[in-house]
Amino acid sequence: MTNYTSINDIDNINSWIEEAKEIKANPLKNIQLGKNKTLGLLFFNSSLRTRLSTQKAALNLGMDPIVMNVSGDAWGIEFGDGTVMNGNTAEHIKEAAAVVSQYCDIIAVRAFPTLTDKELDQSEHVLKSFVQFASVPIVSMESATGHPLQGLTDAITISENATKKKPKVVLSWAPHVKALPHAVGNSFVQAMQKMDVEFVIANPEGYNLNPEITKDTPIYHDQEEALKDADFVYTKNWSSYDDYGKVLKTDLDWMITKDKIGDAKFMHCLPVRRNVVVEDAVLDSDSSLVIEQANNRTYAAQLVLKKILENN
Amino acid sequence: MTNYTSINDIDNINSWIEEAKEIKANPLKNIQLGKNKTLGLLFFNSSLRTRLSTQKAALNLGMDPIVMNVSGDAWGIEFGDGTVMNGNTAEHIKEAAAVVSQYCDIIAVRAFPTLTDKELDQSEHVLKSFVQFASVPIVSMESATGHPLQGLTDAITISENATKKKPKVVLSWAPHVKALPHAVGNSFVQAMQKMDVEFVIANPEGYNLNPEITKDTPIYHDQEEALKDADFVYTKNWSSYDDYGKVLKTDLDWMITKDKIGDAKFMHCLPVRRNVVVEDAVLDSDSSLVIEQANNRTYAAQLVLKKILENN
Amino acid sequence: MTNYTSINDIDNINSWIEEAKEIKANPLKNIQLGKNKTLGLLFFNSSLRTRLSTQKAALNLGMDPIVMNVSGDAWGIEFGDGTVMNGNTAEHIKEAAAVVSQYCDIIAVRAFPTLTDKELDQSEHVLKSFVQFASVPIVSMESATGHPLQGLTDAITISENATKKKPKVVLSWAPHVKALPHAVGNSFVQAMQKMDVEFVIANPEGYNLNPEITKDTPIYHDQEEALKDADFVYTKNWSSYDDYGKVLKTDLDWMITKDKIGDAKFMHCLPVRRNVVVEDAVLDSDSSLVIEQANNRTYAAQLVLKKILENN
Repeated sequence: MTNYTSINDIDNINSWIEEAKEIKANPLKNIQLGKNKTLGLLFFNSSLRTRLSTQKAALNLGMDPIVMNVSGDAWGIEFGDGTVMNGNTAEHIKEAAAVVSQYCDIIAVRAFPTLTDKELDQSEHVLKSFVQFASVPIVSMESATGHPLQGLTDAITISENATKKKPKVVLSWAPHVKALPHAVGNSFVQAMQKMDVEFVIANPEGYNLNPEITKDTPIYHDQEEALKDADFVYTKNWSSYDDYGKVLKTDLDWMITKDKIGDAKFMHCLPVRRNVVVEDAVLDSDSSLVIEQANNRTYAAQLVLKKILENN
Repeated sequence: MTNYTSINDIDNINSWIEEAKEIKANPLKNIQLGKNKTLGLLFFNSSLRTRLSTQKAALNLGMDPIVMNVSGDAWGIEFGDGTVMNGNTAEHIKEAAAVVSQYCDIIAVRAFPTLTDKELDQSEHVLKSFVQFASVPIVSMESATGHPLQGLTDAITISENATKKKPKVVLSWAPHVKALPHAVGNSFVQAMQKMDVEFVIANPEGYNLNPEITKDTPIYHDQEEALKDADFVYTKNWSSYDDYGKVLKTDLDWMITKDKIGDAKFMHCLPVRRNVVVEDAVLDSDSSLVIEQANNRTYAAQLVLKKILENN
Repeated sequence: MTNYTSINDIDNINSWIEEAKEIKANPLKNIQLGKNKTLGLLFFNSSLRTRLSTQKAALNLGMDPIVMNVSGDAWGIEFGDGTVMNGNTAEHIKEAAAVVSQYCDIIAVRAFPTLTDKELDQSEHVLKSFVQFASVPIVSMESATGHPLQGLTDAITISENATKKKPKVVLSWAPHVKALPHAVGNSFVQAMQKMDVEFVIANPEGYNLNPEITKDTPIYHDQEEALKDADFVYTKNWSSYDDYGKVLKTDLDWMITKDKIGDAKFMHCLPVRRNVVVEDAVLDSDSSLVIEQANNRTYAAQLVLKKILENN
């Protein structure tokens, strides 16, 4: 593997999950593998879990992590081809990516979508520019349309907590005050499509995700019907994809409650707004897997870095 | 020891001071102790000494420090219980503390008081929330009402520089242009109360610290009288505690001068505003211990981290 | 060597270049040299290459790098002597430099000029204050009037790419939308004056660099004439030195094009504004050495740190 930028980069999700579990059982086993190698973590946007878990994963492999907040610490980056750079951007991605490649053995990048320019976001111009112009492997720490480290984490967590052979997994949209990206939803859909689960999506009308991603996964607009007999309820808000980046629904009808999900396991990528996305009673119950998910972020990242290091 | 959040967590200050001196004499002796363990440093506020000395302490123990500026790098954190999070905060402390605990073996936190909401500040809601919701030990890098790493540092520094069995130590308020916290003053008072020193406080009327902390320590409103025969003059500004967070006095009458303190040793936690809090002639003289205090910050932090690592 | 703050600190540029090439061939050879030693990187200004390459250099020597964005992470620093600090600055450089020296074995500092106060900038008050008040060696990561790590990098890169005994090197001013410092230009001039090259400068009238630096190096105001038979074209914008900090010329006449430089090697310190400073056709051609320069930043920094470590 050279890059990890999408759930599609996972060749065999079951073997990846098994390897992640082995890493979790013995996280320091490969601490020589990344010795004297550097992971550059470039953040165009805020991060807590990703920032810490990816650093921890690198440390577990003996790597030296170097963190940069691109916007605050460095220069405005230009992505346009042939641009006359007499505006606010001071460095072109062609140079930036090639330069960072001189100092880092792997580059991890976080760059959120605009949520205003659909075509630009769908083109994944930031992530793809790094892939194009860097001379070292690129790992997505969430891009405009995907969050594959989260999707891998979620697959691991479901595998660990499944109590039946083919559990029912529901991805349910939930309300939020702000317009949020589709990245987590997309990668979760793609991960579930690779697993041996019964998978359905629940979202209000107008909130269908990109059909090229959901494909033939059943989509319910009736949350109650979708949640019936669910073993895992993965909750996430996203803004409209059709009416791109818009918040169409602001009431709390779709908030996840204990009443709605019963004893199903509750999952969320965090950060989560309590009593908007999900009520306290769910998050504070034993059914909540959110902290275990956060823990598994380390092992998902460590697996990805390990595979890249072994390949290079 | 599981947490270090107050001078009250020191069981025997004399044995702690001796152990700190041993660490200072041989700082790398325990470099295997923290191997493959991570210290998370979370800053809600600015820091120079604490940021660098705590990292250095961690490195001396073989730990990997991970620094986060919470406000700039991550999400607004909600501390309220049962809050409907439809405002500016994106993540609840319940999740944040539990999540960071997945990646760090010890969490160090800096969070200043509001100086406007006395009840909230006195409740130490940020620090106590971390203690409550984290699953790993918490170290205060200065909270609303205390700065116990500084207090420990100051005790070490006085012990090193004392030339008589029971020196006289004066904590003197000094002027400042801004409203400052009581944290350093409080922890210094608590540290001195545990030591075998003659300890008095000097501050203008209206500037008494919290009486639950000063207890029966003599408080003078006449600075000259308090400073008489002082061996150590610890200087610090704080805003009014009674008229909470207010600056009642702006003239420079209480500025520390060479004339006032003679050959007494001068101490300050830094940063210090020259010629407002203290005149150049004092800071630039051999009587000033401020740089030695800064140096001892490393060993105070290293002692605390060592005790926590040994206990876990 | 105790400090590295200027190209003048290089005693023998040819032996330095040879040693840098040895480091580049075997970058981990001295990984024990900096073991348990800390490099503090203090940034008063933005940085990408310097931030990453200097960290990488430290890691290659086994050092622990600690990065601080002084403006954002810490306190406003006062440089005035005898100032009554009742304004915006909270800590004096006397304390700041002495304090950081307690935690770091070497301090690297970046501080740009004001470009409005010529006398202040020429005095190098930030860098010189660190040299004066720190108790450990200081390395400039670009100061008001020089960028000696870049100058050393450029000397190494020219030595590696020279195909004749005494190549012709041209430093050509180029247009830019903002007022930029003279630091890179100055250090490049000083480095070339030490090397066995035919060196000339090309800049528009009104843009001569400080004559105390350019000395007897030929200065052309006719770019075409200067570029004739050039082997290396080093391009950089700077604002006027005589009419201090002013942008006198905004058209693109002096932009570097393929037509102008033919097969000469193109060099720039980066970041570079494409199609303003230089056209795409040059940067995207095989003649461009800019990425190799960025790579050599690591080895220049590593050489400087190595020399300081060996001397202490």
